[in-house]
Amino acid sequence: MTGPQGKIMLVGIGPGSHEHMTHRARAAIAEADVVVGYVTYIKLVADLLEGKEVVRKGMTEELDRAVHALASAREGKKVALISSGDAGVYGMAGPTYEVLFQAGWTPESDVEVEVVPGASAINACAALVGAPLTHDFCSISLSDLLTPWPVIARRLDAVAAADFVVALYNPKSGRRTQQIVQAQQLFLRHRRPGTPVAVVKSAYRRRERIEFTTLDKMSECDIGMLTTVLIGNSHTFVRHGLMVTPRGYANKYELHGDGSTREGERAGRSLSTGLIGWMENLRIDHADGETVAALALRHQLPADYIEAVLAAPVENEAVKQEAVSAEESEA
Amino acid sequence: MTGPQGKIMLVGIGPGSHEHMTHRARAAIAEADVVVGYVTYIKLVADLLEGKEVVRKGMTEELDRAVHALASAREGKKVALISSGDAGVYGMAGPTYEVLFQAGWTPESDVEVEVVPGASAINACAALVGAPLTHDFCSISLSDLLTPWPVIARRLDAVAAADFVVALYNPKSGRRTQQIVQAQQLFLRHRRPGTPVAVVKSAYRRRERIEFTTLDKMSECDIGMLTTVLIGNSHTFVRHGLMVTPRGYANKYELHGDGSTREGERAGRSLSTGLIGWMENLRIDHADGETVAALALRHQLPADYIEAVLAAPVENEAVKQEAVSAEESEA
Repeated sequence: MTGPQGKIMLVGIGPGSHEHMTHRARAAIAEADVVVGYVTYIKLVADLLEGKEVVRKGMTEELDRAVHALASAREGKKVALISSGDAGVYGMAGPTYEVLFQAGWTPESDVEVEVVPGASAINACAALVGAPLTHDFCSISLSDLLTPWPVIARRLDAVAAADFVVALYNPKSGRRTQQIVQAQQLFLRHRRPGTPVAVVKSAYRRRERIEFTTLDKMSECDIGMLTTVLIGNSHTFVRHGLMVTPRGYANKYELHGDGSTREGERAGRSLSTGLIGWMENLRIDHADGETVAALALRHQLPADYIEAVLAAPVENEAVKQEAVSAEESEA
Repeated sequence: MTGPQGKIMLVGIGPGSHEHMTHRARAAIAEADVVVGYVTYIKLVADLLEGKEVVRKGMTEELDRAVHALASAREGKKVALISSGDAGVYGMAGPTYEVLFQAGWTPESDVEVEVVPGASAINACAALVGAPLTHDFCSISLSDLLTPWPVIARRLDAVAAADFVVALYNPKSGRRTQQIVQAQQLFLRHRRPGTPVAVVKSAYRRRERIEFTTLDKMSECDIGMLTTVLIGNSHTFVRHGLMVTPRGYANKYELHGDGSTREGERAGRSLSTGLIGWMENLRIDHADGETVAALALRHQLPADYIEAVLAAPVENEAVKQEAVSAEESEA
């Protein structure tokens, strides 16, 4: 016979102010018999804890928190394991599932698990500084405790080159001071020194502090454990104290949507730089004698990929791209 | 004389269910005189709109929505411009600031602007499938309307190589069907065919649908405008119907934290693969005769970066890394 049904709720409480917590996060804490979390996060929800068993854990006791939660849930209790931001983004959801699997737990067992999503630090910080995430972005933790530095360095190098907006989590701590300097160095290989950077500390909390700087001065800023660093892409700008990334690359590539042939352009050549138009032009250029190697170099893409595109059967697809914006299908 | 103070609130309503909306998002809509949004999002908050002026816009009318919001705000009205997910992530925050700047708006003018963050599709989808975002991740839109395909392709190639967990937004539409095939092709150059992929449609909405697949079968799935595709990193696994990315790379690199010298190891050589230990080992290997080029190749990092690391003054920093986990400083 199994006991009463226990439950683990992995709750992302958002940036820290109750305003930016979801209804479900608040309800999950209200529903809980036991609330487990890092002592700082427990403080952020202190007024929701009356009558509950509260387990305050240290910063390094992540697996311990998950083990405690499982033990309580197996007694039939409802346990809220709280993370700041989103429970899935460098939060407790991952370590908890790892502990659960190791303990032989399955979704059919007597402990139910629910992950409650929330606004992560990247979303909170972005909202405070303007609109830096309007184009593709990455999140990288500079903590090298569980990740070898070369893995982190390769990621920094890759996304700096590929022009992502980048959020650095855990950029610096008392003992870990050189990672942010190395990140800056890797970025400066690809991005101009004046690239906008926002340094956001304790977003939506009492000691919130926002500093705008540029890539070449980034590592001189006041950066600590509660800081997120946002690095713009090559189009990001700061105006009136707001950091904004434009939606598209239209300016850089001088798209002309009217379909007319202008001086220097060839009739029959697609003016679209979308996939289908790009493929058409690639074929024309190749037929005109441009080698795969030259095309790969010009488009900064692997030669075998260019080759595969050229070898693919020509689809009889409309060149005209549907007028669908990036935002609209956000699910 | 200026008129009454108007306000534009850029509201991220989260995935779509009221449960996962923040208190501030709900309050912002309640406070608004006018609510502007894509018709589908307006439906998601229909029960909050009584007595309000509601402006339903088409999918492509993003700038139009922002222009309308500004006009209303200049009349002294409070306007909620709603986005699904987070207002900053491929949402209305970017286009609106662009329209505002173009109209000569400044933060000191008679229109106040507030961005209300929310859980983005990546957070919502991750919560539903397990814990895929426990390590570094990227978000890439496959819409090539405003972004040239080579830019998107370079990003796909870069993050596939650098082992990020990746969320694909706008993976496919009625007319835009080949981008997901190309993305798959680029990923298969770097990741094993069995890499776990989750295809999530309408997260937390009525027609929610979750499908687990693998990279080699990804493009055969039912993918549409309301789908987000999550591709795991090289360590991500699926167990009991849950997609989980481990926190660290400990297994792969066989870290040994006890500081003991084991067979095949050399005393004096750092066992840490964190930045400081890695730098020490790099110097030892170089002193032993390994060339910069060989080191660059082995660590898959640019040669000039390796050179800069070798040239940097040796810091007398403790090799022992502080036991700080990635999650803890999420601000």
